[in-house]
Amino acid sequence: MFNKISMNPERIQKIIRKKKIDALFVSNLKNLRYLTGFTGSSGFALITKDKGIFFTDFRYKEQSAYEVKDWEIFIEKGKRANTIRRIFSKLGIKKLGFESSVSYIIFDLLRKNTTEMVPQKNLVERLRTIKNEEEIGKIKRAVQRAEEAFLKVKPFIRPGASENGISLRLEYQLKKSGCREIPFNAIVASGKNSSMPHAKPTNRKIQGGDFVIIDWGGESDGYFSDMTRTLLMDANDISEKKKIYGIVNSAREKAIMTAKEGVKAKEIDAAARDFIKQEGYSGFFGHATGHGVGLDIHESPGISMQSSESIAGSMVFTVEPGIYIPGIGGVRIEDMVTIQNGSAIILTSLPTELEIVKKR
Amino acid sequence: MFNKISMNPERIQKIIRKKKIDALFVSNLKNLRYLTGFTGSSGFALITKDKGIFFTDFRYKEQSAYEVKDWEIFIEKGKRANTIRRIFSKLGIKKLGFESSVSYIIFDLLRKNTTEMVPQKNLVERLRTIKNEEEIGKIKRAVQRAEEAFLKVKPFIRPGASENGISLRLEYQLKKSGCREIPFNAIVASGKNSSMPHAKPTNRKIQGGDFVIIDWGGESDGYFSDMTRTLLMDANDISEKKKIYGIVNSAREKAIMTAKEGVKAKEIDAAARDFIKQEGYSGFFGHATGHGVGLDIHESPGISMQSSESIAGSMVFTVEPGIYIPGIGGVRIEDMVTIQNGSAIILTSLPTELEIVKKR
Repeated sequence: MFNKISMNPERIQKIIRKKKIDALFVSNLKNLRYLTGFTGSSGFALITKDKGIFFTDFRYKEQSAYEVKDWEIFIEKGKRANTIRRIFSKLGIKKLGFESSVSYIIFDLLRKNTTEMVPQKNLVERLRTIKNEEEIGKIKRAVQRAEEAFLKVKPFIRPGASENGISLRLEYQLKKSGCREIPFNAIVASGKNSSMPHAKPTNRKIQGGDFVIIDWGGESDGYFSDMTRTLLMDANDISEKKKIYGIVNSAREKAIMTAKEGVKAKEIDAAARDFIKQEGYSGFFGHATGHGVGLDIHESPGISMQSSESIAGSMVFTVEPGIYIPGIGGVRIEDMVTIQNGSAIILTSLPTELEIVKKR
Repeated sequence: MFNKISMNPERIQKIIRKKKIDALFVSNLKNLRYLTGFTGSSGFALITKDKGIFFTDFRYKEQSAYEVKDWEIFIEKGKRANTIRRIFSKLGIKKLGFESSVSYIIFDLLRKNTTEMVPQKNLVERLRTIKNEEEIGKIKRAVQRAEEAFLKVKPFIRPGASENGISLRLEYQLKKSGCREIPFNAIVASGKNSSMPHAKPTNRKIQGGDFVIIDWGGESDGYFSDMTRTLLMDANDISEKKKIYGIVNSAREKAIMTAKEGVKAKEIDAAARDFIKQEGYSGFFGHATGHGVGLDIHESPGISMQSSESIAGSMVFTVEPGIYIPGIGGVRIEDMVTIQNGSAIILTSLPTELEIVKKR
């Protein structure tokens, strides 16, 4: 069950040479996993112009021997500070690249053992945005597990059921479908609660006329999936709600159609946002249209107004426009897509047409 | 359902004056929650000699008004970097204390807006080790929920059941008992798997003669609980296993008896470790005897050989010795205790006598 995806240090060494630094220090656990394949919770990597060394302590000796290929493995004895002091002095590292997300404690330790510190913002994170076939395979399985779990829970999404009860069942089924961890607590937001984009499930019972937003994710080998569907409970006057749903669903489609290799991420956001505005709901879509998904549930690229990123082949991200009207309720529809041969392929497969749950 | 525990800024202001710094910057979310009561995911606090200001963005306007008492609330407009620049210049902050756990990015932003940076290692974390009555009440509820969930699952812990299946049921029951989050995935380790202290559940089916270690935690209002019980499946020759269990249980008792106000944490560790050594199992207890529990599942004090901390009244921590023999299996028994009127009170209430699960 170990993640075998890892990277030959040579790819990072090319970047180091280009940046004219002696070495790169990596300790963010997701970045470390991406580079070396290591899934444990303590370690770091040091990539110099001609070496790729992975460091961990004795607890992970066996595991790292199994997981970490293509890298020299160094099992630390004693304090990490001493390991770093010795190895930096031995290798003569003077100009060090480091993740700008590192803690001050680590930064301070590193700067005491080198001459020049060069912060690297999102260096490995940028590599991670481009998924290879194996990674996309894992994400697809994470989607499949999420969808399988949802279909088992769907019959219970009806008037009288509580948000908490549905969320609980969904998490249970996610684990049962094979997810070893869940990326976030499943959101179930009904009626007036559905107008808050980040509502936590409550004991509220679903009623006729409610929108019910379900936002959940699955996992496979450390890779996540993220999706949202909104159901409508039948009632006498649901015509405006049907209209709102239709607008969100069209916004989703327009965004996906815009998602192509080479476009700016903010153009995808604009496609959804402008359509919602044009339909008269401009003040009611207050979050970003999407985000990258992989080893982290939220990663690059950001699909938002502020994003400065461009879309490239083999990126994986969500498209999730919504309309939220206080007192009435909200709709969000979230698909995951990947860019293949220039255009978006939808990874999620549950239908997005409006489903109206009839009274029994 | 919001956590109402918070601290008047005056307590921090006393510390600031003593440390001769102009202000303290706090952004660790658990520390922020502890100080201000804020449970959201974005904000920071600035405590100067005469002000306690809490900053967050518009998404948390309503929530912070409800949660954050005794603090001035400032709703940020635009980028956090600009907020910091303006407020530091307005208040004339020259000598700034900051959490040494902060990221390099924040550190770098802060140092550009002040003259002197004074790292503070575990300043708020140290305050958090001493729990007040309300916090202990929340921890007790977290224990109660964990125990309630365990008792529902216990009948299923028997030969033929899989580790994964038990872990899954336990997590389901934890959520059902009211836990809004689970501090860590429930560990269920049987037979030879039980000799690895941090084993993840597998599809292995429990067999006669197995030790089954269950290590799990509950939650209430953001506060966690953590406990472990080990059951033994009946078989013909379990006499050595009974003996090992007895040694671990006595080690647990000896450690708890040693846990008194004023002792060094490492004396508690030694009480368990020395007893296990004296009984002939010295190489088979490779982890610390315990750790503090509160808003974090692992916090100060560390109850280990290396610990330099002393035990004080109203601390809450685990006592969890174990013996792990490769190929045979392992035993760990974990209670949570708090120090009241000088001595340890056990917060966990499930019995620790050996339970042998008979064949049916």
